[in-house]
Amino acid sequence: MARIVQKFGGTSVADIARIKAVAATVKRELDEGHQVCVVLSAMAGVTDQLVGYAADAGGAHYSPEYDTVLATGEQVTAGLLALSLQEMGVESRSWLGWQIPIHTDGVHGRARIEKIEIEGLEQTINEGGVPVIAGFQGLGPDGRVTTLGRGGTDTTAVAVASALGADRCDIYTDVEGVYTTDPRIVANARKLEKITYEEMLEMASLGAKVLQTRAVEMAMKTRQRLHVRSSYSDVPGTLVVDEDEIVEQELVSGIAYSRDEAKITLVQVADKPGIAAAIFGPLTDASINVDMIVQNVSADGQATDLTFTVAKADLDRAVETVEAKKDVLEYADLLSDSNVVKISVIGVGMRSHAGVAQRMFETLAEKGINIQVISTSEIKVSVLIAEEYTELALRALHTAYGLDAE
Amino acid sequence: MARIVQKFGGTSVADIARIKAVAATVKRELDEGHQVCVVLSAMAGVTDQLVGYAADAGGAHYSPEYDTVLATGEQVTAGLLALSLQEMGVESRSWLGWQIPIHTDGVHGRARIEKIEIEGLEQTINEGGVPVIAGFQGLGPDGRVTTLGRGGTDTTAVAVASALGADRCDIYTDVEGVYTTDPRIVANARKLEKITYEEMLEMASLGAKVLQTRAVEMAMKTRQRLHVRSSYSDVPGTLVVDEDEIVEQELVSGIAYSRDEAKITLVQVADKPGIAAAIFGPLTDASINVDMIVQNVSADGQATDLTFTVAKADLDRAVETVEAKKDVLEYADLLSDSNVVKISVIGVGMRSHAGVAQRMFETLAEKGINIQVISTSEIKVSVLIAEEYTELALRALHTAYGLDAE
Repeated sequence: MARIVQKFGGTSVADIARIKAVAATVKRELDEGHQVCVVLSAMAGVTDQLVGYAADAGGAHYSPEYDTVLATGEQVTAGLLALSLQEMGVESRSWLGWQIPIHTDGVHGRARIEKIEIEGLEQTINEGGVPVIAGFQGLGPDGRVTTLGRGGTDTTAVAVASALGADRCDIYTDVEGVYTTDPRIVANARKLEKITYEEMLEMASLGAKVLQTRAVEMAMKTRQRLHVRSSYSDVPGTLVVDEDEIVEQELVSGIAYSRDEAKITLVQVADKPGIAAAIFGPLTDASINVDMIVQNVSADGQATDLTFTVAKADLDRAVETVEAKKDVLEYADLLSDSNVVKISVIGVGMRSHAGVAQRMFETLAEKGINIQVISTSEIKVSVLIAEEYTELALRALHTAYGLDAE
Repeated sequence: MARIVQKFGGTSVADIARIKAVAATVKRELDEGHQVCVVLSAMAGVTDQLVGYAADAGGAHYSPEYDTVLATGEQVTAGLLALSLQEMGVESRSWLGWQIPIHTDGVHGRARIEKIEIEGLEQTINEGGVPVIAGFQGLGPDGRVTTLGRGGTDTTAVAVASALGADRCDIYTDVEGVYTTDPRIVANARKLEKITYEEMLEMASLGAKVLQTRAVEMAMKTRQRLHVRSSYSDVPGTLVVDEDEIVEQELVSGIAYSRDEAKITLVQVADKPGIAAAIFGPLTDASINVDMIVQNVSADGQATDLTFTVAKADLDRAVETVEAKKDVLEYADLLSDSNVVKISVIGVGMRSHAGVAQRMFETLAEKGINIQVISTSEIKVSVLIAEEYTELALRALHTAYGLDAE
């Protein structure tokens, strides 16, 4: 007997027929003798609708009322799944964030889970029942409803799985698992059988949408095994596990890309101490995240070019922020470009193997693709290239690292 | 300075534009120096949609999950109105049933309010803010969400008004007040300036849809002044008040009708002690409400005809229930008829004036309308007639009692 937490996303509970299919999936695990606890998203499209209502009412910003409105989507699906399970003869009850409670901090719209009181859930489970938890929501320190930010139901699922000491946390989604790269672009992308938390984290933060970054971080911290799988078929998906569990580690596990990047170059910035702080301090103050940064050693010791990337949505604000400091920074020109894409090669194997980055550079050079910015971490090499080369680069790299399906 | 509870129904909060209009109405009272607390319904149509979902999921019966699903409608509008008020510069916060809490019994789908803890609401009001309460919902003894039944937001509003010691409870609706009869049928129906609780109670339970019966009962018990008014215009509506407040009491205040009646006649029932109990006991056990009952003295002391009415929706079950007892009841025949309407003449004035019922019988006789069943109370005379005479009877009675607008 295993204890399983199952998370179903918005498309898996999009209507009553889908909700009944979820109930059948739950029952299948029960019939095999397992204990099951379910965590649900809102019906597909509902959260967007509620966000639209809140924006029209004047609540463009995160607030207690915004969260009060948004949390209803998951309340509806949780109640409906519990009803569907009962209809199938399965004991079940819904649990809302405030009922469990899932205690969070008070940062509305992006709250973080602080503590989950599991007594009620344990009681439902021990009585042979299935707790159905409304994902994405919690209870703030002031007794108000909080929400965890987009994709927060993943985080709820992982947090609940860890709190319950679950053997597995199954993330049901509309894809069959985690792929070596986006199968819509690279036709012979392969589904991975296993992937490490670290790799999944890089994949998630680089735009692979199957799992929320925060959920992966939490799973990594608590060593919670995740199983990313399809709610439409029964085939095994991808296990997200500890590195030790992967015997034959590939050099590279996947290739991710993010179109959500924009590049800013400051031409001929003074090359003197404190200049980086003078640039990035104001950006931080304006809550603009800077991703890649490249600064060359200056030829003459006087001035150098400095390039960095920000999220596309932040580009205009970033340019304004930097231009406001032109007096201090004394740069000759400011160039910005949003027609760029970040391509990343990811794999824990590269820790112990040299030449991974080199192969990337050679492959792109062979296709005549110019690399604008490079950034590396222990298990990842990212480059910034012109956006029009996205598909070409992905396919070439996928082949070069031997990832193509046979 | 007055303390006002304002209740807005589903059509008044049907979309964001309407919700903003509600916010403007709230602000107008604040600007005049009053304290305001708002109670809201779900957007028009939303509760029906949620009921549909629950039924499709297998929750045709009232249950904790049914209530969990249904309560979301009011949660959305409460959050949205608080946002709209904030946008207009008015301090406001939403209050959900469990947050206040509004304690109810555990009868899901039809819960009754037991106690309202007003500390939080008072705090919001005393800080110059407007509490916006999600109507229709409460917190059961087991910590589950409960709902109060259809129209329950009226009950929430009256209960909150009484708990807060409000000077007025304004019921905003899509009509301008309470009319002498249905203006869609009788063109010269008049809006009443004032009406007593007792009369309003009869009107509500006889099908006038402006106020839920339970809300009127509660207002009568706590002597809470109600003001039924239009959310589309600023004209005064109808005050529901104590009898003492109405100086010039009309003989008859209004004429109500209900098409939701069906008639059952048992022909030649044995005329002996215990026979009524033998009929109505099983109906009560089946949760079928019996309204009018008529039994004649039998001519021969052996057998008599017995006629009673039930809600149209219960007719088939009522017939089955009675037929199952045919052995005991020994009736000759069972006749049922759902093509009937109940017409009621209502007025506290008839307590001190004879002849009210007589004028009704005469008026109907003049129009050739046969009276099938008669039932009277202190302030009401009801008759059952064939449904096809509804309009004719209403217009004739409206004129006969001098209710026509000049």
